Amino acid sequence: MNQQTIERLPSGFVYEAMVAGIKKSGKLDLTLIATTGPAVAAGVYTQNLVHATSIDWCRARTPSDQIRAIVINSGNANACTGAEGEANNRRLAELAGIHVGCQAEQVLVLSTGVIGRQLPMPTIEAAWQRFPTLSAHEEAYLRAADGITTTDNRRKVATGTFTHAGRTYSVANMAKGAGMIGPNMATMLAIVTTDFPLSPSLAQAAVRSAANHSFNCISVEGHTSTNDALVLLSSGLDPNLAADDEGYQKFVAALQQTCLTCAKLIPADGEGATHLMNIRVHGASSDSAADQIARAIANSALVKCAIHGNDPNWGRIVSAAGYAGVVFEPTATELRLNGHLIFAKGRPELFDAKIVSQSIRADFEVQIDLQVGAGPGAATHYSSDLTIDYVKFNSEYTT
Amino acid sequence: MNQQTIERLPSGFVYEAMVAGIKKSGKLDLTLIATTGPAVAAGVYTQNLVHATSIDWCRARTPSDQIRAIVINSGNANACTGAEGEANNRRLAELAGIHVGCQAEQVLVLSTGVIGRQLPMPTIEAAWQRFPTLSAHEEAYLRAADGITTTDNRRKVATGTFTHAGRTYSVANMAKGAGMIGPNMATMLAIVTTDFPLSPSLAQAAVRSAANHSFNCISVEGHTSTNDALVLLSSGLDPNLAADDEGYQKFVAALQQTCLTCAKLIPADGEGATHLMNIRVHGASSDSAADQIARAIANSALVKCAIHGNDPNWGRIVSAAGYAGVVFEPTATELRLNGHLIFAKGRPELFDAKIVSQSIRADFEVQIDLQVGAGPGAATHYSSDLTIDYVKFNSEYTT
Repeated sequence: MNQQTIERLPSGFVYEAMVAGIKKSGKLDLTLIATTGPAVAAGVYTQNLVHATSIDWCRARTPSDQIRAIVINSGNANACTGAEGEANNRRLAELAGIHVGCQAEQVLVLSTGVIGRQLPMPTIEAAWQRFPTLSAHEEAYLRAADGITTTDNRRKVATGTFTHAGRTYSVANMAKGAGMIGPNMATMLAIVTTDFPLSPSLAQAAVRSAANHSFNCISVEGHTSTNDALVLLSSGLDPNLAADDEGYQKFVAALQQTCLTCAKLIPADGEGATHLMNIRVHGASSDSAADQIARAIANSALVKCAIHGNDPNWGRIVSAAGYAGVVFEPTATELRLNGHLIFAKGRPELFDAKIVSQSIRADFEVQIDLQVGAGPGAATHYSSDLTIDYVKFNSEYTT
Repeated sequence: MNQQTIERLPSGFVYEAMVAGIKKSGKLDLTLIATTGPAVAAGVYTQNLVHATSIDWCRARTPSDQIRAIVINSGNANACTGAEGEANNRRLAELAGIHVGCQAEQVLVLSTGVIGRQLPMPTIEAAWQRFPTLSAHEEAYLRAADGITTTDNRRKVATGTFTHAGRTYSVANMAKGAGMIGPNMATMLAIVTTDFPLSPSLAQAAVRSAANHSFNCISVEGHTSTNDALVLLSSGLDPNLAADDEGYQKFVAALQQTCLTCAKLIPADGEGATHLMNIRVHGASSDSAADQIARAIANSALVKCAIHGNDPNWGRIVSAAGYAGVVFEPTATELRLNGHLIFAKGRPELFDAKIVSQSIRADFEVQIDLQVGAGPGAATHYSSDLTIDYVKFNSEYTT
């Protein structure tokens, strides 16, 4: 597993990206990923009531075993664009279908960028005439990964391989999202490709579980975008696959690992972030109780400011846990920051604040470990700190 | 009704505050309010599991018709202080009881300030020897109001009067809280005194309802403190009071008005805040649905940054509504900023962004009006914007 180098791409996919002119910056803004045959597809999408037309389009078409391609435009989210936006979304699918040689219905569409503006369709129609030939090469894959980014400072790619029954399979994950400087909604997109044969229903189960343990556990400001999506494509079909199949278990593990790697890159990105907080809560009555506590800490502006200031401020962390809406026993609670015990039995410990502060300052990642009892529930969240640059970027006039 | 001048204080109360030496700044930090006879008392308190010992003390003693005094110390929250903190809290009640001439059990206690540190009891014991004589004068009331503040830049007082059956009654509200620069949890305290005779149960009902429409509708960063409390004391008892009594209705209205006035002063306070957002949501299926949407907008860091930048960013507001967890119809949604229609029928309106931006810039208060359908539900929230100064103040090393 590696973030930037590719171990081995899954067989059965071809990729390419181009500068279509949607972004003012002149960077890659139109990506096409296609399969050499019908693919199994599954996806999880933003829960926001206000969402892009592409989300409705994909939701209606996954899970499936008849998908042939996914087209992604960046620079324009095609959200809050009404009937015209819907027609433009369908046209993107048609154009991709013509290029690949399939029905528009077999093409998934994702968009990311500014909301409330129509796609520049004449520009896109003209650009399609010179869309490059799709290729299975790593360079084409990396261009595709760059093509889905918007305000990202870094490309976000993670791959994993596993062997099963004498064969090697790959999982490749490309993602985009950088909350810190996103002038709009910091949309998160991830497209996972694999050559491990799946059934549509088990593909859907795997992608939902992976999202819950990765992309659903990161936060920058807790603002769910209109366009968030995680889509999985497999070039292989196994309609008889069982959930307890050993190969499927290996696939799920590889999927989760690539999702977690990509997910952590999102809050870590952006000029504003000076720390990535790894917030582990354990000893709760259930995983969902632990999740609720970790989420409250991850989203607390006061905690995020404290970590930015390298301040081992146990009070903000413990009280954020206290208002999470989950019952636990404060006197059975222990808080460790980077391994240092700073709160136990309902009271602050005698700890050397300077040493703990220096340990926060020394690393980009900070470990917040909160034990809230002796229960079996545990969860981990990842969040950026709250910085002056965050406010600067997000206060700039963008409308 | 006026924030800073006192219309008429309720009869039956005496007040005073002193510099006991709890605050390093040498400002007033010990306040005592007493009644000339047994008072009716009611309160609502922080829902945080991690809360101060004073909260447990007050919760166990309200509602009541036997309260004689309330003592408030500022500069130390006496939270996360264990059994020693509990004993110190009781000692505060005992000292106040000796001064007033009642049992410790008849004294309510509130604390606000840093958490996790023991109260400096020898200092407080020595100071009590020279606690001034309590007085019903306005100057004594204002000193008491100053004595409960911590990082507040401004005193927060609101009074109201009403007449019923030929008599004039008063409601006086003193509050503290300034989230923007609170190095700890921006505790909100409010103490309401009245001479309208109440029963304990109707006092409790009134204070709960008033809190829900005032202090529970403000947010700076959505961080519930360990010490938040709203306490109501009436110098008159009417055990036979009925909820539909005309005088009680007038009292409830006056109580709610003083609470709302004080509540809005909290997010408006602090060097950091450059705007107070008045977020009105209406047309929802129920009041609680509207409340949930208004709260999501009020707590969105991206919305708060946009307003700080005088940016009419409809996308952040509408999408925050969309993730609030409440069902509504985006295409039936209308958004007005300072009266300008900027979003309707699922799409942005053609509006002059410069004019709307200038209207935001021109006023400290900004009106965000979101209609989400034709339902009967409505709610209003009040929130400060998110500024560079907020991050600066809250990133400073405070532990």
